[in-house]
Amino acid sequence: MPQADRTRAMRARLLEATVELLVERGFAGTTTTLVSERAGVSRGAQLHHFPTKNDLVVAAVEHLTERRGAELAEAVAQLPAGGRRTRAVVEVLGDHFSSPVFAAALELWVAARTDEALLAALRPLEQRVGREAHRMTVAALGADESRPGVRELVQATLDLVRGLGLASTISDDSARRRRILREWADVLDKELAP
Amino acid sequence: MPQADRTRAMRARLLEATVELLVERGFAGTTTTLVSERAGVSRGAQLHHFPTKNDLVVAAVEHLTERRGAELAEAVAQLPAGGRRTRAVVEVLGDHFSSPVFAAALELWVAARTDEALLAALRPLEQRVGREAHRMTVAALGADESRPGVRELVQATLDLVRGLGLASTISDDSARRRRILREWADVLDKELAP
Repeated sequence: MPQADRTRAMRARLLEATVELLVERGFAGTTTTLVSERAGVSRGAQLHHFPTKNDLVVAAVEHLTERRGAELAEAVAQLPAGGRRTRAVVEVLGDHFSSPVFAAALELWVAARTDEALLAALRPLEQRVGREAHRMTVAALGADESRPGVRELVQATLDLVRGLGLASTISDDSARRRRILREWADVLDKELAP
Repeated sequence: MPQADRTRAMRARLLEATVELLVERGFAGTTTTLVSERAGVSRGAQLHHFPTKNDLVVAAVEHLTERRGAELAEAVAQLPAGGRRTRAVVEVLGDHFSSPVFAAALELWVAARTDEALLAALRPLEQRVGREAHRMTVAALGADESRPGVRELVQATLDLVRGLGLASTISDDSARRRRILREWADVLDKELAP
C-alpha cells in the first residue's frame, strides 16, 4: 500500500475507534490510550495526527457525521414521491438521530457545555452540520421557505427528532417515536401544502 | 433549631450544592468531596444521608425537579385563557426545559447511558417526571386525548422542547426557540381545536 493510503487507513481506524469508545464509555471514559490500543496505532503516530484528545474526538465525530450524513442523503433521495413521502422522510430522520453516531455527538455536546476548549472546537462543526441537516430536510420535504412559518416548522422537525434522539439514548423508544412522527408528518403535509 | 429542621436544612444544602456542581462542572467534575465542601457539611454527615455519589446526584435532580415542577405548574395555572394561551403554555415549557435544572438532568441522563447503576437509579425518576410533565401539559392545553392523534401531538410538544433544551445548552438559542414555539403553538391550536 502506498504511504498516503496507509496514513488514510490509520486515521480512519483512529477515528472509528474513538467513536466506538464514545458510544461505549462516554466522553470521560474515552482516553487517548484506549483509542490507540483499540485502533492498533502507536502512541507516537496518534499524537502526530491528533495532538490532543479534543482534536481526536472532534475529528472523529466530524468523520462519522459526514459519512452518515451522506448515507442519510442517499436514503432520502431514494424515497418515493407521493402520498407517504413525508412520513418516510421524518422516519428516516428520526432513525438517524437515534443512531450510535448521535450518541457519540451527544457525549461531545454535553462535555462541551463545561469545557471551553472543546466548545470552541465543536462549534464550527455543529453549525455546519446544523445548516446541512436543515438544507437537506427542506429539499426532502419540498418545503417552500419563502412562505411564512415554513422555515420554523422545518426547524421544529429537526429539534423534535433531536429530542426523540435524546429519549432513545436510555431506552428503546422506537415504537413511541414512530407514532409521534407519523402524526407529525400528517401535520406537516397539511401545513406545507401549497 | 430542632434537630429535624437542622437535618432537613442540611439535606437541602447538599442537594442544592450538587445541582450547582452538575451545572458548573458536569457529571464527571462533580465529586462528593466538592459537594460537602460547598454545602459546608461534614463528610461523615454527608455519607450518612447519601452513601454514594449516585444516591446524591439522583436525589439532587429529584429535589430540584420537584421544586421547579411545582413552580412550572403554578406559572401555567396563572396563564390567561383565550387566544394566546397555547403560545404562552409552550413558551413556559420551552423556558423550563432550557433552565439550569435541565442542564443538571441532562448530565445525569447522558452519564446514565454508560453507567448501569446510575441508569437503574434514574429510570423510576425519569418515568415519574415524564408522566407528570405529560399530565400537566394535557391539562394546560385543554387537550382531549380521546381524539386520535392528540396524545401524540402532546408528546411531540414535550420532545420538541427537550430538543430545544439540548440546543440551548451550548449557545443562547432563545430567539430561535421563540419563533419555532410560536409556529408550533399555532399548529397545536388548529389540531387540538374540538
